[in-house]
Amino acid sequence: MYCLGYGGDIFMSMKRMIQAAHGDIPADVIFRNAKLLNVLSAEILPGSVAVFNGKVIGFGEYEAVHEIDLGGRYLLPGFIDGHVHLESSMLSPAEFAREILPVGTTAVIIDPHEIVNVMGERGLEYILDSTWNLPLDVYVMLSSCVPATHLETSGAEFTAEQMRKWITHPRILGIGEMMNFPGVIHADPQVLEKIATAEGKIIDGHAPLVSGKNLAAYVSAGISSDHECSQIEEAREKLRNGMFIMLREGSAARNLATILPLVNVQNSRFFGFVTDDRHPDFLLEHGHINSMIRTAIGAGIDPITAVQMATINTARYFRLSGVGAVAPGYKADFAIVDNLDDFRVVQVFKSGKMVAQDGELIIASRADTQNITNTVNIGDFSINHLKVPSTGGNMRVIEIVPNQIITQKTICPVAIVDGEAVSDPASDLLKMVVVERHRATGNVGIGFVRGFGIQTGALASTVAHDSHNLIAIGATDKDILAAIRAVKEMQGGQVVIRDGQVLAGLALPIAGLMSDQPLGIVKQAGDRLVGAARTLGCRLANPFMTLSFLALPVIPALKLTDKGLVDVERFEIVPLFCD
Amino acid sequence: MYCLGYGGDIFMSMKRMIQAAHGDIPADVIFRNAKLLNVLSAEILPGSVAVFNGKVIGFGEYEAVHEIDLGGRYLLPGFIDGHVHLESSMLSPAEFAREILPVGTTAVIIDPHEIVNVMGERGLEYILDSTWNLPLDVYVMLSSCVPATHLETSGAEFTAEQMRKWITHPRILGIGEMMNFPGVIHADPQVLEKIATAEGKIIDGHAPLVSGKNLAAYVSAGISSDHECSQIEEAREKLRNGMFIMLREGSAARNLATILPLVNVQNSRFFGFVTDDRHPDFLLEHGHINSMIRTAIGAGIDPITAVQMATINTARYFRLSGVGAVAPGYKADFAIVDNLDDFRVVQVFKSGKMVAQDGELIIASRADTQNITNTVNIGDFSINHLKVPSTGGNMRVIEIVPNQIITQKTICPVAIVDGEAVSDPASDLLKMVVVERHRATGNVGIGFVRGFGIQTGALASTVAHDSHNLIAIGATDKDILAAIRAVKEMQGGQVVIRDGQVLAGLALPIAGLMSDQPLGIVKQAGDRLVGAARTLGCRLANPFMTLSFLALPVIPALKLTDKGLVDVERFEIVPLFCD
Repeated sequence: MYCLGYGGDIFMSMKRMIQAAHGDIPADVIFRNAKLLNVLSAEILPGSVAVFNGKVIGFGEYEAVHEIDLGGRYLLPGFIDGHVHLESSMLSPAEFAREILPVGTTAVIIDPHEIVNVMGERGLEYILDSTWNLPLDVYVMLSSCVPATHLETSGAEFTAEQMRKWITHPRILGIGEMMNFPGVIHADPQVLEKIATAEGKIIDGHAPLVSGKNLAAYVSAGISSDHECSQIEEAREKLRNGMFIMLREGSAARNLATILPLVNVQNSRFFGFVTDDRHPDFLLEHGHINSMIRTAIGAGIDPITAVQMATINTARYFRLSGVGAVAPGYKADFAIVDNLDDFRVVQVFKSGKMVAQDGELIIASRADTQNITNTVNIGDFSINHLKVPSTGGNMRVIEIVPNQIITQKTICPVAIVDGEAVSDPASDLLKMVVVERHRATGNVGIGFVRGFGIQTGALASTVAHDSHNLIAIGATDKDILAAIRAVKEMQGGQVVIRDGQVLAGLALPIAGLMSDQPLGIVKQAGDRLVGAARTLGCRLANPFMTLSFLALPVIPALKLTDKGLVDVERFEIVPLFCD
Repeated sequence: MYCLGYGGDIFMSMKRMIQAAHGDIPADVIFRNAKLLNVLSAEILPGSVAVFNGKVIGFGEYEAVHEIDLGGRYLLPGFIDGHVHLESSMLSPAEFAREILPVGTTAVIIDPHEIVNVMGERGLEYILDSTWNLPLDVYVMLSSCVPATHLETSGAEFTAEQMRKWITHPRILGIGEMMNFPGVIHADPQVLEKIATAEGKIIDGHAPLVSGKNLAAYVSAGISSDHECSQIEEAREKLRNGMFIMLREGSAARNLATILPLVNVQNSRFFGFVTDDRHPDFLLEHGHINSMIRTAIGAGIDPITAVQMATINTARYFRLSGVGAVAPGYKADFAIVDNLDDFRVVQVFKSGKMVAQDGELIIASRADTQNITNTVNIGDFSINHLKVPSTGGNMRVIEIVPNQIITQKTICPVAIVDGEAVSDPASDLLKMVVVERHRATGNVGIGFVRGFGIQTGALASTVAHDSHNLIAIGATDKDILAAIRAVKEMQGGQVVIRDGQVLAGLALPIAGLMSDQPLGIVKQAGDRLVGAARTLGCRLANPFMTLSFLALPVIPALKLTDKGLVDVERFEIVPLFCD
């Protein structure tokens, strides 16, 4: 295993490591003239660090094959992101690594919730296979809630039995965020069966606003972290209850600044940084864990404490040994920074080798797309699938709340043409369709949405939490059909259609979720999609992000899945038309 | 397993735990009116703590079968001793528990180095068997250096193969202090083979004054703690190198006050408290971890930080989950104290049940001595075994350094009677004998020692580090023989003899190391032994403690084993007589 322990001949490897540390054989490389930020002794010390076989072997003078003069720069342990869905970057693991390594992140703990929803074990296998030889340590938590609900059709189930099979994998550290908190609190046997597969490994939590006895029950099940705190009192209670608090700064959910005042030097070890979901534009603009360290220091946290939160705290929470600090036996994963104010990362070393300089990856890294494409399976799809016979009256409409993932329920009169309910752009009422795209069941959910503002054309996407079915909206059935067919043609992706023509498109060949291209290209394509949507009259800042949450039936109030309209408060399918 | 996880039906147990935490079924007991010292949030909070099935389930109001009003006292997590050789207490595990539980220690990590030297795997089995149902959590580290050297005969070898067999035991947390630091530093294959058995579990260190590249090599082998720091700079270097620093306050070695100034709030998590070796008198006078907390607070450490060092720090170092804090899912192991100044422990709860009050154990606990007695196997032993033919001249003499475990080498003229070298009490030169007592090999090492001051009579003991052979000194061969025979008769223990009669004795039937009696009785017998030795003219404060280190060939300068006189600097057997 790339990431773990000694290689094939453990014995010989250990012997040579000891000999190198003792100075009997030369080190591979020595980093001289460093200011080492030692997160263990909580000191900043000038000096040298020697590396052999990818690990730190000692401080001070060593004979070495290579020498690197850091010119008095700060040498920090590489940063760790304790919880991230890398699918949200829309990048392949290799391209994701290309973006986060140059800003100092050398290890991530990912929950492949999205791809496992699409592809099940094959998605998990892809994540493990495509990351094992990256110059980034990728640890995995087993997605615990696939499918997320019974009100939608996902591409796969990920069962307790399957989890038991995978839990012993050396790079799998435990069970990912247990989003079904009501199931835990009410001791649902199926949920407990999944929890019991952890076998002493870590179980991450996800318990927004859960408190009091509900929280006690949730924690008593053995769940030991939370990254959903949006209020300081919420985080305080979870900390008291023994949870590791993952401070989150994602594209949609940004809680870092709110929770930071809770951190003090005596409790800081129980805090770490996570990004959860960062979309391409956010990654480009803000970077990664480095920006969170900067924010923490700006909020008055001591730099050493902040770096501990970005490194050793998360490593220790996940019981990763030899990661998160710079000391003998630890991996030589370093972020080199100019100063402790703006935390600009100038060089990054992984296992003692330079992998990034001045913000650019300097080694080859290429997306692997084997066995992971061609996931859009909707069979023949015709205009007839979009028809909604109606005799008029009122219908339930999904009302978008700008910049939020919740929606509101509203009731509107049906627009009728030739005995069918149709989009009514003049009233900003657009037909919305969710087509089951994994198993060609033929399931099509149809509803209406208000808030896009589109006057003509259509949008479609295969990114639609949590089941990632094919979702589309449009001013005419014809353009909706064209959008669906375009996405099918790409085998995953996002499009903007006008008059049957593709105005803009982004192919997402990997499970229909991720591009095989670098971030710059993905970001450009994303910008073009937004620009094109704007020409249709769309008023939303990020219409595809909005679209991606409209099929998520665990967030209030009214959503649409391939099974139909979901009233989230009642947690059941409801008819489109009112009585 | 008593100490670990859920019971037989993991599923049902988890379900009921969640239900109790949620308030659906009553808690077993609620502790009201507590000041909870929360080591996780680093706060002291007034309130209640509810317990179900031996674990904490929540804070605040709960319906419960039993109710305990703490009257505003402080509720702390039970204390943890991170490294102790319980044999040094001369008590059976049950009687050891009787002493340390009432002062708040609810978990210990022991290295059964002494008993494994005597009995090998059978000694380890005894430790595991006699502790599994104690009201004290006993975790074990596998003794790594048995036999300690090739210059003595131990009762058993404990091989890498045997270690591999035991390492997976759920109460075995790893490999005990790797005392053979030269072996590690020089990558001795036999030592590396033992290290490799850890399989990712913890490896404790023992590296007095090891520094620089030697330390780097030692740590690079995967050794992650040290309890031997006697100087603050030594501890600082070890901390920087990633070691967990075990602050030690034992009977012989007391380093706490020296090292405490190194501890600050940012690095304190990497420090814990250990006792290593505490003899009966020291236990009675000073207690246990509670006294170390008091000392730390006296030295200016914040009480919350001090309690973290006594609890969660050590638990996390050993990767013990559910131990070392008071929060849902943690064992309900509590020390109740009146105040945070003198740290008087008034009540102790183990798994939610009261086990001690006002310094006394209130539950039954009895020594188990099955299969662990009758370890003194010296065959027939006669006065002829003690004879040392000599033609005069000079000899190498062990010179005691009062209150230290090192000795000095000195050269003295031989006293001759009838062609034999004999004790010469007038010059304070006493014959000293180490009789191999495990396998009846007939090995007898004979030397001479200066510093006891005994004018008549003899002492003998089966406690003699590390091989624990039978050691005796005396003014006449006749009394030495009587002492050896008396100890053989007791099948282990310590005696003072005058004119062939036993003046005082302490039976140590368990492996010849431990009594089956309570501490009070052991202490009384120990006092009588010292008093009796004094009547023989002995000037040493604790002659039996001194005696116990005279056969330890890893501590300079001259020692005696069953194989003969050991020059420790040369690390070889040397002749008694000089050229």
